Amino acid sequence: MVDTGPDVEFIKIGDLVSVPFNIACGRCRNCKEGKTGVCENVNPDRPGSAYGYVDMGGWVGGQADYVLVPYADWNLLKFPDKDRAMEKILDLAMLADIFPTGFHGCVSAGVKPGSTVYIAGAGPVGLAAATSAFLLGAAVVIVADLNKERLDQAHTFGCETINVALGEPKDQIEHILGEPVVDCAVDAVGFEARGHGHESEEEHPATVLNTLMDVTRAGGALGIPGLYVTGDPGAREESAKHGSLSIRIGLGWAKSHSFVTGQCPVMKYNRQLMMAILNDRVQIAKNVNATAIPLDEAPRGYHEFDEGAARKYVLDPHGMLARAS
Amino acid sequence: MVDTGPDVEFIKIGDLVSVPFNIACGRCRNCKEGKTGVCENVNPDRPGSAYGYVDMGGWVGGQADYVLVPYADWNLLKFPDKDRAMEKILDLAMLADIFPTGFHGCVSAGVKPGSTVYIAGAGPVGLAAATSAFLLGAAVVIVADLNKERLDQAHTFGCETINVALGEPKDQIEHILGEPVVDCAVDAVGFEARGHGHESEEEHPATVLNTLMDVTRAGGALGIPGLYVTGDPGAREESAKHGSLSIRIGLGWAKSHSFVTGQCPVMKYNRQLMMAILNDRVQIAKNVNATAIPLDEAPRGYHEFDEGAARKYVLDPHGMLARAS
Amino acid sequence: MVDTGPDVEFIKIGDLVSVPFNIACGRCRNCKEGKTGVCENVNPDRPGSAYGYVDMGGWVGGQADYVLVPYADWNLLKFPDKDRAMEKILDLAMLADIFPTGFHGCVSAGVKPGSTVYIAGAGPVGLAAATSAFLLGAAVVIVADLNKERLDQAHTFGCETINVALGEPKDQIEHILGEPVVDCAVDAVGFEARGHGHESEEEHPATVLNTLMDVTRAGGALGIPGLYVTGDPGAREESAKHGSLSIRIGLGWAKSHSFVTGQCPVMKYNRQLMMAILNDRVQIAKNVNATAIPLDEAPRGYHEFDEGAARKYVLDPHGMLARAS
Amino acid sequence: MVDTGPDVEFIKIGDLVSVPFNIACGRCRNCKEGKTGVCENVNPDRPGSAYGYVDMGGWVGGQADYVLVPYADWNLLKFPDKDRAMEKILDLAMLADIFPTGFHGCVSAGVKPGSTVYIAGAGPVGLAAATSAFLLGAAVVIVADLNKERLDQAHTFGCETINVALGEPKDQIEHILGEPVVDCAVDAVGFEARGHGHESEEEHPATVLNTLMDVTRAGGALGIPGLYVTGDPGAREESAKHGSLSIRIGLGWAKSHSFVTGQCPVMKYNRQLMMAILNDRVQIAKNVNATAIPLDEAPRGYHEFDEGAARKYVLDPHGMLARAS
Repeated sequence: MVDTGPDVEFIKIGDLVSVPFNIACGRCRNCKEGKTGVCENVNPDRPGSAYGYVDMGGWVGGQADYVLVPYADWNLLKFPDKDRAMEKILDLAMLADIFPTGFHGCVSAGVKPGSTVYIAGAGPVGLAAATSAFLLGAAVVIVADLNKERLDQAHTFGCETINVALGEPKDQIEHILGEPVVDCAVDAVGFEARGHGHESEEEHPATVLNTLMDVTRAGGALGIPGLYVTGDPGAREESAKHGSLSIRIGLGWAKSHSFVTGQCPVMKYNRQLMMAILNDRVQIAKNVNATAIPLDEAPRGYHEFDEGAARKYVLDPHGMLARAS
Repeated sequence: MVDTGPDVEFIKIGDLVSVPFNIACGRCRNCKEGKTGVCENVNPDRPGSAYGYVDMGGWVGGQADYVLVPYADWNLLKFPDKDRAMEKILDLAMLADIFPTGFHGCVSAGVKPGSTVYIAGAGPVGLAAATSAFLLGAAVVIVADLNKERLDQAHTFGCETINVALGEPKDQIEHILGEPVVDCAVDAVGFEARGHGHESEEEHPATVLNTLMDVTRAGGALGIPGLYVTGDPGAREESAKHGSLSIRIGLGWAKSHSFVTGQCPVMKYNRQLMMAILNDRVQIAKNVNATAIPLDEAPRGYHEFDEGAARKYVLDPHGMLARAS
Repeated sequence: MVDTGPDVEFIKIGDLVSVPFNIACGRCRNCKEGKTGVCENVNPDRPGSAYGYVDMGGWVGGQADYVLVPYADWNLLKFPDKDRAMEKILDLAMLADIFPTGFHGCVSAGVKPGSTVYIAGAGPVGLAAATSAFLLGAAVVIVADLNKERLDQAHTFGCETINVALGEPKDQIEHILGEPVVDCAVDAVGFEARGHGHESEEEHPATVLNTLMDVTRAGGALGIPGLYVTGDPGAREESAKHGSLSIRIGLGWAKSHSFVTGQCPVMKYNRQLMMAILNDRVQIAKNVNATAIPLDEAPRGYHEFDEGAARKYVLDPHGMLARAS
Repeated sequence: MVDTGPDVEFIKIGDLVSVPFNIACGRCRNCKEGKTGVCENVNPDRPGSAYGYVDMGGWVGGQADYVLVPYADWNLLKFPDKDRAMEKILDLAMLADIFPTGFHGCVSAGVKPGSTVYIAGAGPVGLAAATSAFLLGAAVVIVADLNKERLDQAHTFGCETINVALGEPKDQIEHILGEPVVDCAVDAVGFEARGHGHESEEEHPATVLNTLMDVTRAGGALGIPGLYVTGDPGAREESAKHGSLSIRIGLGWAKSHSFVTGQCPVMKYNRQLMMAILNDRVQIAKNVNATAIPLDEAPRGYHEFDEGAARKYVLDPHGMLARAS
């Protein structure tokens, strides 16, 4: 049919797909430039949107039996072979959020073959970043946290680890590398950081950023997928309530650092990471200790996660993940 | 309305828009990566499509009163202010094809502030490439052709010119620059090139590519928006009939050249070039000598163009361009 | 001579050259990667060095009759034609520092053809950044300052201007562009920023950075060549004494901003900018109002500059610049 | 001492170093831009030089007891820890040439995590390219050759293999991937390619390039580290004697391919690859089957290599490699 072109069907009922956590229209300037994390059309308040978040456009879902996906032809990633996909379904579930997010942190930080990398945070995003660093060819991946169980998890797949409660990161890095700095650093913590040492129960929201500048070599870059908010009503300090943090910018400037912030544009990476999973080049589910739980056990999952469990809980409303594994 | 998101209207009746010559679905991998010139869904024969071309998917139009634009929300570029747009409408008409194409050639060739640039061909795409080179900050732009009238046109906006009938391009470049090589080169001719000198009526399809390798410095790059076909039934040589040309690849290899080929992905550039036009930073219509003619005078336009007129004929079915100027 | 290769002479007595303000060894990892602003071998205290600066390696000079240039074959840029260079010598003098610095700010901020650009500061670096933005093809360049004379200077070469004492930059940008945000922003001020309005005599060191995040679109980038120090003993606030500033990082994060900081690596840009000068594509001396003064009038120059004169004073120990113009 | 800066010693007697095969001055424009493969000062005939090659500047060495290294502070890569280096010395020996060359081919072809890659040639450079592709995170690496022993070697470290004598590469790729095209392709053969099938004893110098265009997806890129010469006196065809090959450029153009040619600039990659080796992320010596032989056995090594042995012979004049392993 000449006039209307090939009869193409993009997504059809029965396809097995991954849904990026960010919602994007696929038509605005930012979407056309690949910046789907700051789509201009899906949130009346500001660029960028996501399912089931406060202040992100009011889209429901994300933790539900079903979800309405707007602009589905644009947003969805279809798995090419359904049977093969089912064999790796728990890994593929990570494509919606933490795997691309950790990967984005590493790419933004300039990780490449031979890099030494410091990753702040051994939660799911930190472990996904560490996994990504290895996939990108990093020579040494150092993961830092206060939580021993999570550091042990990082250790299982070849990371060096730093317990920030036990001394200055810089000194511990020197012990590992023979020099006190790394090439690249990723902030997988964000504003909810706790300080080091005995005062560690209090939030010290700029701690991670300041440490990252301290441990990154001059000329290096910092990837910052960890969330910083425009305002935090519960913060101790007045400035933090308005999203301002006390940052040692002079240190970063003296070292000519670059800083890349913001929500990961999932679509920029999910296809290639899917390929790495389907061809057995990466074990993201194992590395983040992904654990499928039924939807009605979500409160337990959240509770254990808050307690510091070294697990990525994945809600599995229809038992699909449980059946596959 | 929470469930379905903001009520966004992308393109509506009455908008004044630019239609890229390449047709793209906005959903395939290549489109998502910005490679709309090789969209995978709009041509059953091979990636990439265009209006009114042979072997490009069978989409009609491009030279008609009206055109059906598939995936219009994705493909169309809307001008933000209709009144302002009407004042620059002949310039904006160049956004559909030759301005982005010439610009793509320059970007692919690595043109930046201070570059010396050689552009093969002073036809509309060559003149658009020269215009783009200046917009990108080039120090010296040298345009080469066999057609004196077209070279004179290039001269009107500050280009140096080379008549390839009058001597080796390398020698003429040395005369202009004090050295026989340029930083960047653009092929705005393609396979229909004619040779230099007395034999110039015959096609010498690889002449331009070979000259470009000769005149580009070691470490430089070649942008090749000029069309090379997969087969040319009318070619003199058997190999050219199958799209094979005799190329001095050894010369390019010794100089570590990069070659970037293919149809321009218009959407990658048209918004920024629109901004340059609307803010009077570039005079593309004047530089290519854009001339609006009614649709029924198209045969005359084609004839004069084939005769070598230094004009870009623009079909103006509804007299809109004529009225605006 | 087979064993020792061609007899190459890099720099010889009598050459006319430009000396980048940063000193670099040409052999360390950072130099090999083009990051000459953070050379690892020329300053025992930390990466990066410069002539005549405190805490930058102890190299004398920069404002003297003669200067010793270490690693001269690496650091010096030789002008190809001495006679031609003498005709543009005041422009070429800008290659040592402010022109590349302003250019680096724009490149870091992603300025390209069609960009809308906000430049904080109409001092010499700000005006050099504005000049660079046009050279890179920017559609609209908006320069902001509190000093009317400097803004007038920016106006002379086509910039839009904003007096930040007269209202929110965002509102003034909306008045100019029709939307309250720009694509790219450059901080040509640094930590010595003064606040807006009646309190403007006090330093508000993070003002510029916070404004830049406010006025830059989501997905945009900030180039930050303006100096931020690791410590400022004379600062009002305790944190600023240690180089910490209160930054609205949450705002930048929500907009996925990138931040590129640090001293310009002059060598990365000076050759191409030289080419633009020598071929009359840019009038940097005129735009920054470069004014040559004898070495012994340096104190007057500093005084007038501190008073806010819209001039770039250039020390001219041997009267070479004065004679040339 | 203030005037002359820190007392830096770059390379000193006793250091263990890697010598890139390309010789570069470290002061010319190309060197400053990282293009050390086309240094402008070390070869009076044309940019680019190497030890012991015809027509490359007349520098002796490369296969000798000792070698004179010009501009040694610039050219040499020092291993940070001599003891650790001795443990990996056979791997580190690959940094002089084939490992960076294979890596450059992959980087030029755009290989990244998740890529599918086709590598033409299972000789040492091809196997190094395959090793590099995995280090860069490739999902599937397909190596093609006519030599079964070499293909078997590729198979030992996880490559898929294609014997081009047994059918069209496109068909064999489809069998492996489920689609007949790859994302990225590397030419690790060059002009000495032999054709497929019964005529395989003759050289078909453009065979590899044409196959690469055939098997690379639209929008993909080709890395071409395989050597193409400016002239081949022994070629069968007249055009090939002058370095011209019959290339299906129309096919590449229709697919918007990019082509990156030339000698690898070793210095751009050797430090990072050294880090990957020293931290056990890659086994390059094992993958290319590196075999140290005494200098006086070089003729045997060349002979066996010409016979198609799946080995990379490494000349070991002082028995250092032999002692280490």
